[in-house]
Amino acid sequence: MTGGRERVLSGMRPTGNLHLGNHLGALDNWVRLQDTYDCFFFVANWHALTTGPERVHEVPRHTIEMLADWLGAGLDPDRSTLFVQSWLPAHAELHLLFSMITPVAWLERVPTYKEMVEQLGIASPSYGLLGYPLLQAADILMYKAQWVPVGADQVPHVELTREVARRFNNEFGPVFPEPQAKLTEIPKVPGTDGRKMSKSYDNAIYLSDSAETLRAKIRPMVTDPARKRRTDAGNPDVCPVFDLHRIFTPEADRAWAATGCRTAGIGCLDCKDVLLRHMEPALGPIRERRQTYVEKPDLIVDILRAGTGRARAVSEATMAEVHRVVTLTP
Amino acid sequence: MTGGRERVLSGMRPTGNLHLGNHLGALDNWVRLQDTYDCFFFVANWHALTTGPERVHEVPRHTIEMLADWLGAGLDPDRSTLFVQSWLPAHAELHLLFSMITPVAWLERVPTYKEMVEQLGIASPSYGLLGYPLLQAADILMYKAQWVPVGADQVPHVELTREVARRFNNEFGPVFPEPQAKLTEIPKVPGTDGRKMSKSYDNAIYLSDSAETLRAKIRPMVTDPARKRRTDAGNPDVCPVFDLHRIFTPEADRAWAATGCRTAGIGCLDCKDVLLRHMEPALGPIRERRQTYVEKPDLIVDILRAGTGRARAVSEATMAEVHRVVTLTP
Repeated sequence: MTGGRERVLSGMRPTGNLHLGNHLGALDNWVRLQDTYDCFFFVANWHALTTGPERVHEVPRHTIEMLADWLGAGLDPDRSTLFVQSWLPAHAELHLLFSMITPVAWLERVPTYKEMVEQLGIASPSYGLLGYPLLQAADILMYKAQWVPVGADQVPHVELTREVARRFNNEFGPVFPEPQAKLTEIPKVPGTDGRKMSKSYDNAIYLSDSAETLRAKIRPMVTDPARKRRTDAGNPDVCPVFDLHRIFTPEADRAWAATGCRTAGIGCLDCKDVLLRHMEPALGPIRERRQTYVEKPDLIVDILRAGTGRARAVSEATMAEVHRVVTLTP
Repeated sequence: MTGGRERVLSGMRPTGNLHLGNHLGALDNWVRLQDTYDCFFFVANWHALTTGPERVHEVPRHTIEMLADWLGAGLDPDRSTLFVQSWLPAHAELHLLFSMITPVAWLERVPTYKEMVEQLGIASPSYGLLGYPLLQAADILMYKAQWVPVGADQVPHVELTREVARRFNNEFGPVFPEPQAKLTEIPKVPGTDGRKMSKSYDNAIYLSDSAETLRAKIRPMVTDPARKRRTDAGNPDVCPVFDLHRIFTPEADRAWAATGCRTAGIGCLDCKDVLLRHMEPALGPIRERRQTYVEKPDLIVDILRAGTGRARAVSEATMAEVHRVVTLTP
């Protein structure tokens, strides 16, 4: 399956149905990476605990929903290794070994840590939240991935991973290659209220949304607030609907919509109907494929079992190397 | 093997040959606990990394030496479960799960953390050093031990373990009993220079020391510094040699030595020879037994393998319970 191709690794926390922001920010890119790379994609379910154990009972269902989205979007379990982090305790072992050579100060400096503590209003951050970039380092280095697809905010995590790899290699012996961040171009994906699309803002369009739901979300969607009446001219550059046009609508129709908006030649609903006409061919097939999977949770579990088996073989080989240099027993 | 007896768990970092301070501060107590409790004693080799990876290549040899001391002192692998922490990655997994529910602040407050950082002059403490009491919590709770034999300085670790157990049980479901600290009466064990016996002070008497070495260490040992000449009277209460008499010498001979010292009736060498006469019957059999083991490192490894197998069965049962309540996968 590898065939000398470079390896990519990435993971997602199982938070349930994926929305367009998740899709266009990561998943869609993963699907494309399959053509060129040996891809390892994992369910980051231990990471789901870093911000609190409150919703642990939802994780099994969220895992099924997320995997249906993955498979619906085109992740191919024959080409990519899809696996579950918590089924491989070796990740926890490698994380623990890394914890012995990683200064607390490195972790306290990670920008996303302070951001999460502030944004989520976490009064008393857990030891696991502080250490989660180190768990990521273990996830990545376990598979000796050359590439980690990330958004700009995650680049410090890849840098930390490189530092951990260097320090491990220095202290114990050369085991880990240093991975590189593969910056993903992330389009601006507004939610229906014009803010960034987010599950917690209740403004999200899900891959699971039916054509009717999609239409019911797009038609009342916020547009250029200055265009109060049909006869007012609008500005596509400040219109969230036009951000979606940039993603889904081909050049010619997009130009038509922009001109119509600027000249008040078309109304917002005309513009939205054109958008819907172009969204449906992109999202419909994903929705249909995901539906076939969501009805077969056992198949999803089988796919994860098989993928985890393949991942286990790689992780065991890495841990054998680790144990050769970290000589903890006679 | 259990037979309804309450369980005790303790571990030691593999730092090589044990000295009298280690023996009288912990090991000797472990040997006695075997008569009453279902004992689990483990090689805390991951803990050996918390203060730096520099000496990792010595750990295998140190493990053999320490086990020879354990077995020499009377730990009985048929009655007690002697095992190796790092051979059971489930400890790392449980530690990781605990890290998700344990505030960083709890760990920063542990007194031994700040003490170690200061005493060892650690400029940049590792994430693993900060978290080591949490790894201890995983070690203890994995076996649902009722009792943890500790010195007074380790009581906060047992308290932390109880808090972690309570929080886990609250968040996920009742899995872990709260262990109790079993305070060990630790006698004062001075080194040959009168300071606390410590490997790093080069003042230690080892269980592996031959009768000749023992004699060569005791005879020049520091005594009451005020007793400069043979004709000066001494004070046993400030004499390190008398601290050893309190441990090894029966009442009658000890009284004879104290009176002789206070009246200048005996010299320090007379006093030390009496001490040696009583140390040898206590230490000789340990030394001989340990020697038979140290010559058979393969036997030691076999004993550890068998013990780790027994520990694994218990840890798997605990982790099955953990996985039933921490529902991370479908």
